[in-house]
Amino acid sequence: MSDKKKKKPQKLKARLPRGFVDRSAADIRATEEMVAKIKAVYENYGFDPVETPLFEYTDALGKFLPDQDRPNEGVFSLTDDDDQWMSLRYDLTAPLARHVAENFNDIQLPYRTYRAGYVFRNEKPGPGRFRQFMQFDADVVGAPGVQTDAEMCMMMADTMEALGIPRGDYVIRVNNRKVLDGVLEAIGLGGEENAGQRLTVLRAIDKLDKFGVEGVKLLLGEGRKDESGDFTKGAGLSGEQIEQVIKLVDWTNTTIASKQVGDGFPVEWSERTETNENRMAQVSSTNSSRIRALDIAFGWHKATRLGIEELQQISALISSAGYDDRIAIDPSCVRGLEYYTGPVYEAELTFDVTNEKGEKVVFGSVGGGGRYDGLVSRFMGQPVPATGFSIGVSRLMTALKNLGKLGASEVVEPVLVTVMDGDAEAMGRYQKMTQELRAAGIRAEMYQGNWKKFGNQLKYADRRGCPIAIIQGGDERAEGVVQIKDLIEGKRLSGEIEDNAEWREARVAQETVPEGDLVEKVRQMLEAQAEDRRRAG
Amino acid sequence: MSDKKKKKPQKLKARLPRGFVDRSAADIRATEEMVAKIKAVYENYGFDPVETPLFEYTDALGKFLPDQDRPNEGVFSLTDDDDQWMSLRYDLTAPLARHVAENFNDIQLPYRTYRAGYVFRNEKPGPGRFRQFMQFDADVVGAPGVQTDAEMCMMMADTMEALGIPRGDYVIRVNNRKVLDGVLEAIGLGGEENAGQRLTVLRAIDKLDKFGVEGVKLLLGEGRKDESGDFTKGAGLSGEQIEQVIKLVDWTNTTIASKQVGDGFPVEWSERTETNENRMAQVSSTNSSRIRALDIAFGWHKATRLGIEELQQISALISSAGYDDRIAIDPSCVRGLEYYTGPVYEAELTFDVTNEKGEKVVFGSVGGGGRYDGLVSRFMGQPVPATGFSIGVSRLMTALKNLGKLGASEVVEPVLVTVMDGDAEAMGRYQKMTQELRAAGIRAEMYQGNWKKFGNQLKYADRRGCPIAIIQGGDERAEGVVQIKDLIEGKRLSGEIEDNAEWREARVAQETVPEGDLVEKVRQMLEAQAEDRRRAG
Repeated sequence: MSDKKKKKPQKLKARLPRGFVDRSAADIRATEEMVAKIKAVYENYGFDPVETPLFEYTDALGKFLPDQDRPNEGVFSLTDDDDQWMSLRYDLTAPLARHVAENFNDIQLPYRTYRAGYVFRNEKPGPGRFRQFMQFDADVVGAPGVQTDAEMCMMMADTMEALGIPRGDYVIRVNNRKVLDGVLEAIGLGGEENAGQRLTVLRAIDKLDKFGVEGVKLLLGEGRKDESGDFTKGAGLSGEQIEQVIKLVDWTNTTIASKQVGDGFPVEWSERTETNENRMAQVSSTNSSRIRALDIAFGWHKATRLGIEELQQISALISSAGYDDRIAIDPSCVRGLEYYTGPVYEAELTFDVTNEKGEKVVFGSVGGGGRYDGLVSRFMGQPVPATGFSIGVSRLMTALKNLGKLGASEVVEPVLVTVMDGDAEAMGRYQKMTQELRAAGIRAEMYQGNWKKFGNQLKYADRRGCPIAIIQGGDERAEGVVQIKDLIEGKRLSGEIEDNAEWREARVAQETVPEGDLVEKVRQMLEAQAEDRRRAG
Repeated sequence: MSDKKKKKPQKLKARLPRGFVDRSAADIRATEEMVAKIKAVYENYGFDPVETPLFEYTDALGKFLPDQDRPNEGVFSLTDDDDQWMSLRYDLTAPLARHVAENFNDIQLPYRTYRAGYVFRNEKPGPGRFRQFMQFDADVVGAPGVQTDAEMCMMMADTMEALGIPRGDYVIRVNNRKVLDGVLEAIGLGGEENAGQRLTVLRAIDKLDKFGVEGVKLLLGEGRKDESGDFTKGAGLSGEQIEQVIKLVDWTNTTIASKQVGDGFPVEWSERTETNENRMAQVSSTNSSRIRALDIAFGWHKATRLGIEELQQISALISSAGYDDRIAIDPSCVRGLEYYTGPVYEAELTFDVTNEKGEKVVFGSVGGGGRYDGLVSRFMGQPVPATGFSIGVSRLMTALKNLGKLGASEVVEPVLVTVMDGDAEAMGRYQKMTQELRAAGIRAEMYQGNWKKFGNQLKYADRRGCPIAIIQGGDERAEGVVQIKDLIEGKRLSGEIEDNAEWREARVAQETVPEGDLVEKVRQMLEAQAEDRRRAG
């Protein structure tokens, strides 16, 4: 007996693996609203949806995860029953490259597609850092010219505005990897043998927003110890090399003079401040002057020049389409991924939010991308140029919540048909009423819990936010009538009445109508409630 | 040198792991259309969305996969970095049970939710059998009465009709596991020690549609060899035991007399044929007679009686709500999952389709579910009743395609702004035109491939199905005008002209308008095309 007791199976623990979360109705509806708005913009730009599965062969995904020194450490992988390694996708770009290469003969280039879906990172989870999250990507494959990159920047801007982010609260930053690559070549970091070091430099620069200039300098040099004492090894650049890199990317607290770009260039160039507060103020009309400044400082090098010329073209296109108040050439925008080969761009929200330390900070990047001319070619015998970007859906949603731009579409909770009697005939009547309401397009449900405790039914209606309760006891049934309780009216009144308990008894707005008038009366009551909400704003 | 050549990295192969597929734009749009319609029904019934992540701890998922003798063989699993086993969900029910148990104190019962999402089966893929597929579930947790099961059946029926499946082309079959359990107990298969055998019996019965009565008899007995020679071990029942089980579930080609339910019962009961052709004809008004027949044949056993009484209640509710022409009590409906504890139900499409062997067959089940009062309780110290069902989205989509019920919503491909000149100023103008069209809500794109081959641009427009091409060369630019080609009109005309080549030169419908009239003219042309489509039906 005591043996048996010991063997009693332990109760299963209901818990999720770390870094994964359930999503609430409000969260799901907000995401759907957001995704629908983004989709409308992409469709308007002539993009079509395409979707790949969550698994890919590990080798097809490549080893392009950012912030990951040991390849495949950051992905979820397992072996298939034929011993081949499969991984869950960590972004939506690598699978698209595989898709295009696999179906190359059937695909009409340029191939303009978008996709929203979950991606997975096998990383240490942290606050706001999940192992499954949603990205929303758009890409054009088979488009060699920077006019496509320029269009991508405009589409990002239109997306921000479609989501209700006012012009001035966001900026699309655009740069060109070729400029950075040229500078790195000029300081002796060119060639295949320095690829690893270049990647470290890239990731260091990408941390400018997070660690500031001094932090980046450490990461470019020997390395940086963070607050917890963890040490990140640096790129090992010399002081002189670091100076050149910083000169390229740091435009914070810098005057034109100290940039030594000579006289005659607009001063807006210099107005960027540490807090990014005035960033938007400088966007307008400064793109061409920024490019000229870049040109004077770094244009002497052949590889750098090429990048600067592409930026010039992008700037001209942006200007023609009237987007230069939204899209800014910004040499500090580099993106952390290794595979970009040309223009890179990102959408940054410029309004302040309060972080976990109580500090006011700029919200920052909500998405970005760039040109990746080498990704599809990995599978092919020929070059296949491509460019595209990714939006971090959860992060953008957080931003929209901050701006009060989500949840505008109103969800009315269901009308509750209560159950006063459990015999088959009564139940059948309640069910019929419920079906009649539904057939009229009115969201409704019959109480499905234990009906014998009527108080529980009203408590349920209250917690669920049901706007109306339908009640029919034996007496009403005999008379062929139903009671309709206006629960919202009741709640509103309850605010005006001192004695809440008394109100519950007496003041709940309630009407008794013939059974045949049920649907019509409920509709009227719901309309009156909607009118109340409109008036209340 | 030759060494270097040998070391040249092998070209990566672009391919998907077996059993996974990419999805096309048409497929994605059809799914979205379908999911939106299903969602509207569930919302109307008072259900709210909730979503769980794709991973769960393996133990939380349980070992409930159908057709899987070795537990966890059918799931994708891996160990987390703390050595705990995680698995990709194989359905949406087990994760819901975990979610409810984990958040039990915050959840208002009855808890009415729906969710659509991908599930994964680590199985041998086959034709139409994928390792990632979408399910769409609805469940009520905390609802003990069969009125909830009855409502679920009605919701399934409403869903079928919302998707455009005509009444008569589908039937919702409902049964009760308690009846089968009672019969199994009566033939000596009760008790914990026979749980494994009962599961084998269950899965055998679930194959009735697939293998017919003789096949099921083999699976109930020694076992069955399939066409490929693979042998499936049977439940090992005796001849007498098999007879009782078959008597319960086989209503094909059976007359009332041979069922020995006595005189006075309607004969519709007996009309079900092997091909299911007349199944719908028997639904109406036969539910109560079926239950009486069941009662006479099996009602003598206490456990069976309980199930029959529940079926009676369900039948009464269905009848009150006027659904008995859509929902049929059917003793052969068992569902293959072990965890059901009461009513089980499924949606079956009754129209014929042609299978891969060229035979006409009934389309069959597109979804189903039942009551699973034990699933949430596994995590809890208390019983938590629940019921729900799952729709196989891909399978249902195939059915809707067969019925011509999908893709009704029309997607207009983008207007193509062609590129005649690549200098920055010209590009800027093309981009501006494109943006103006988009700003007016007209789907548009500027050609992003190599613009120098103009023929490629028109070929692109043709393959892409662009309705209109915009052309502005140097002459037009000097005059401030644009050419607008109606590509659909051109196509229509081309059918009427003998010499197609000649037409291409001469007859493409084309207008030249001032730049300022571009948007208005394009809008008119698109409207004319839409009118043409409407007239063509």
